[in-house]
Amino acid sequence: MLKLYTFPKTIGLACHIALAEAGAAYELVKVDFMTNAQRAPDYLAINPKSRVPALETPQGILTEAPAIMTYIAQTHPAAKLVPDEPFAFAEMLAFNIYLCGTVHPAAAHRHRGYRWADAPEAIEDMRRKAPLNVAECFDLIEAHMFKGPWVMGQDYSLADPYLYVLTSWLARDGVDSAPYPKVMEHFARMGERPAVRKVLAEVEALSAA
Amino acid sequence: MLKLYTFPKTIGLACHIALAEAGAAYELVKVDFMTNAQRAPDYLAINPKSRVPALETPQGILTEAPAIMTYIAQTHPAAKLVPDEPFAFAEMLAFNIYLCGTVHPAAAHRHRGYRWADAPEAIEDMRRKAPLNVAECFDLIEAHMFKGPWVMGQDYSLADPYLYVLTSWLARDGVDSAPYPKVMEHFARMGERPAVRKVLAEVEALSAA
Repeated sequence: MLKLYTFPKTIGLACHIALAEAGAAYELVKVDFMTNAQRAPDYLAINPKSRVPALETPQGILTEAPAIMTYIAQTHPAAKLVPDEPFAFAEMLAFNIYLCGTVHPAAAHRHRGYRWADAPEAIEDMRRKAPLNVAECFDLIEAHMFKGPWVMGQDYSLADPYLYVLTSWLARDGVDSAPYPKVMEHFARMGERPAVRKVLAEVEALSAA
Repeated sequence: MLKLYTFPKTIGLACHIALAEAGAAYELVKVDFMTNAQRAPDYLAINPKSRVPALETPQGILTEAPAIMTYIAQTHPAAKLVPDEPFAFAEMLAFNIYLCGTVHPAAAHRHRGYRWADAPEAIEDMRRKAPLNVAECFDLIEAHMFKGPWVMGQDYSLADPYLYVLTSWLARDGVDSAPYPKVMEHFARMGERPAVRKVLAEVEALSAA
């Protein structure tokens, strides 16, 4: 049984969708950001980075969403969530790493500027600029990266839930989604997948718990 | 023949080392940051993200260092630069993604704060705070992640060149390396590997070119 430590509206959602798409047996553990549970000693013993998600596996703990998702996919090969061929695999991985290492930090400057500066004016300046940076990333995704109908082309892959979650943050992050018709159509289509519907119901239950 | 678009002292160096360790046939293309070549139309046609590294392969272009390195390792399996087993692979990938998505952006706030804010005071505030954030990351690496003698334990892997490059930035980034004896011993030992010596000589030639 895999155990996912997560919190609603974080990138943990992409791992949660990967678990459901893989047909994995899993349970969810809510790391309650409202009570700063991510900084509590019992969670730091699981993930000293003090972030979600973390995945407890029979072999130990994994962190970092693109790596967690790759593990889920590779241990559930029947679901075909990652290509086997090295170039196609690396291309998919590069997409998720771009979201993880560039787009996600760009968005984080909107709400978590205190990570990188202390002065209130500096944090406000980051907050103002963040939507422009996120929009620039989505310009590239729409124009150059998204192949269609799924992110990597004909085959659904781990790139799809990752993009889905970052797309779900656009409105909160002050980014107008109108220039991204392909991305928004993908978002709507993702919402119709049975695994995604199941996950969203589980997230609702977790939020209420 | 693989073609690596890179520039000295960037994370392209980690990919360059992976190519040498893999025994790959490769050539280097200098994307000259001094002349803003990363923003020139001919480079944007290769990598619209306007960053290095990019790897030209027989199947197309790859970006994002952890993905490029994975491709190099998986297409040169004899060099055994990545574990085959999914948990070990994901754990190694998570290490590189932490360096790529958290440590590298933390360091970038020292020299490239203009990416996330415009006000000179905001950029100066980030510049001041960056070494503290990088130090916090290296605290975690030294205490929790580094297994020894190599990053992932007995076996040399792609985590080693990635850490090597970020360690090489510490002094420039204003971070005191004294609290990181394991990381610094690893850095010194990396410098003795024949592949790394060969790469450093090639970088020197590239710098002069």
